[in-house]
Amino acid sequence: MKIEITGRDTGTRARAGKLRTSHGEFETPAFMPVGTQATVKTLSNDELKECGVQILLSNAYHLYLRPGEDIIRNAGGLHKFMGWDRPILTDSGGFQVFSLAVLRKVSDEGVEFRSHIDGSKHFLTPEKMVGFQTALGSDIMMVLDECVQYPCEHETAKRAVKRTLDWARLSKSAFKAGNGQHLFGIVQGASYKDLRQECAEELVKMDFDGYALGGLAVGEPREITREITGFTTDLLPEDKPRYLMGVGEPHDILEAVSSGIDMFDCVIPTRNGRNGTAFTSDGRFSVRNAGNSDDLRPIEEGCGCYACKNHTRSYIRHLFNTDEILGLKLVSLHNVYFYQKLMREIRKAITDGKFTEYKNERITRWISKPQVR
Amino acid sequence: MKIEITGRDTGTRARAGKLRTSHGEFETPAFMPVGTQATVKTLSNDELKECGVQILLSNAYHLYLRPGEDIIRNAGGLHKFMGWDRPILTDSGGFQVFSLAVLRKVSDEGVEFRSHIDGSKHFLTPEKMVGFQTALGSDIMMVLDECVQYPCEHETAKRAVKRTLDWARLSKSAFKAGNGQHLFGIVQGASYKDLRQECAEELVKMDFDGYALGGLAVGEPREITREITGFTTDLLPEDKPRYLMGVGEPHDILEAVSSGIDMFDCVIPTRNGRNGTAFTSDGRFSVRNAGNSDDLRPIEEGCGCYACKNHTRSYIRHLFNTDEILGLKLVSLHNVYFYQKLMREIRKAITDGKFTEYKNERITRWISKPQVR
Repeated sequence: MKIEITGRDTGTRARAGKLRTSHGEFETPAFMPVGTQATVKTLSNDELKECGVQILLSNAYHLYLRPGEDIIRNAGGLHKFMGWDRPILTDSGGFQVFSLAVLRKVSDEGVEFRSHIDGSKHFLTPEKMVGFQTALGSDIMMVLDECVQYPCEHETAKRAVKRTLDWARLSKSAFKAGNGQHLFGIVQGASYKDLRQECAEELVKMDFDGYALGGLAVGEPREITREITGFTTDLLPEDKPRYLMGVGEPHDILEAVSSGIDMFDCVIPTRNGRNGTAFTSDGRFSVRNAGNSDDLRPIEEGCGCYACKNHTRSYIRHLFNTDEILGLKLVSLHNVYFYQKLMREIRKAITDGKFTEYKNERITRWISKPQVR
Repeated sequence: MKIEITGRDTGTRARAGKLRTSHGEFETPAFMPVGTQATVKTLSNDELKECGVQILLSNAYHLYLRPGEDIIRNAGGLHKFMGWDRPILTDSGGFQVFSLAVLRKVSDEGVEFRSHIDGSKHFLTPEKMVGFQTALGSDIMMVLDECVQYPCEHETAKRAVKRTLDWARLSKSAFKAGNGQHLFGIVQGASYKDLRQECAEELVKMDFDGYALGGLAVGEPREITREITGFTTDLLPEDKPRYLMGVGEPHDILEAVSSGIDMFDCVIPTRNGRNGTAFTSDGRFSVRNAGNSDDLRPIEEGCGCYACKNHTRSYIRHLFNTDEILGLKLVSLHNVYFYQKLMREIRKAITDGKFTEYKNERITRWISKPQVR
């Protein structure tokens, strides 16, 4: 897997490109909505496509527990199981095991844990997660990594990097290239540059199809996220895709794109959609606010999404007020559309040589009006 | 409002027809999905249209409480508020006041109650509900009636019929014809033929645009529902639409169509959809059953709905198993589609002179296989 660069910004390290998979290509910088349990919450596949989604993310950890490998294999893989024919990236489950599961024991071989759902005991290994993601048929699969919490001592972070590198080697050995699937390594190292550097350099030697930055946006100050993102991205090869995991807010995405990041995923658009927070070019607002009760404007004037073309804030506020599911769907849909539109604008700004201008204009606007009615 | 009869069955009183409203015509026998709070739960308007829905029902009682008249008036009426441009029938709220609200006092003037939502006190009168439904812009509005519970003494039912007739007169006087809206009377009388007869005859004298049968399918044996439906329908004018409120199961609909009923509404397809029960031509089944976990068939083979064209039982079962909203939507959508398809088939069978054959074939099949896998 090589990224085909279609445009570069002059003032920053931002780049636009394309990545090809056996389920079609997707453009970068790309934002992947999160379909944790083989569904992007509240949205149908057709709705995702109408929003312009070219690739989505699903979580191997969740799928491993429910519905499990047999059922997905029986359907012919994850694409067929969920009826999505475009690219899918699956997270290995590292982050989930270390954040959701009741953790039992991490060893050189893997991690033993109890399911957060039913307490059942499981043992995940790097090899097993490559095997599982191979069965899923993920276009891009991620290695199992050890995630640490923030804040984290240097010593702890160092041990996690060592294990992450060991597991990356085991994953790479277990991975069978040539069937159209790709494997990304994950750079860990918390907020320590020496560890990030060691991890990145070792992973690059192993020659993965792409490289992710893990363990960021987990509670550290935004300046550290940016500093480490920029520092680490500079250590990664130019011809391979770079993926900043779990990020983020629109302005975080703009900053990371400046550093040369190509791929993003985050639950922000969908989770916020379900609690009634809508993103717009002028900032975000809650449709639940009483002030929207008689507001006949759409969520965002001029927006081309189904919610904005068909419904008013007044109606959507009523749906939230009466606990109607359609409300959750409409704001989720708008937010997913908004994020895809943001990525289209970013790509265009880069190829037009106007990225810095675009980024500054956006960020100034969002900072000056963090909340609009 | 007159019903344009387009076909009659020879063996039964079943008839097919058309009704015109200022939001377009709809074909009868018609089934109206229930959009209690200005939304058919989980479904968008586009999805309803794809299912073939020509008219839907909403509840004046709920809309009166939330969002209230001002907000709907501000939007330009219920159609604009909810973005639905096809016909809407609104129930007056009689049934809801007598079943959901904390009832305070029924008088000749109206009914005082406390909201089931926040305990706020309200006083509904027949005139006020006509006024409210006029503001909603309902294509068909219903008079406020007094509903009794089953079982019910003759004396109680008689008093309720008297009040229902008094309120019908007040409603008729308050109703201003000529703006494209229509007003239906509601026949009450519990399971007493003498009361049903008196109520029907008095209402017919008042000359409503159509007539509904209320207070049926509220717990009485199915034979009584059928007996009273047949008996009452025979007392209603041939040239006016007849609406059996709150019914029902597919086989109840077939029986009522035989008696000459033209319109139906019921929460069954959507409520069952949300609990995972799917209707098919071979009966109903629960997609939650473990047996569906690896079943790669759609809910119903050959069904043209979005759920069946795109997803397997295995996937939908997984969605229910993991509490994903998409699951509720997919089965609701299938059921609404199934009901619309049933009505299309009923109309065709009537105009083809094969209704009795169709009805018997269906009922035999459903009775022989009440639950299929």
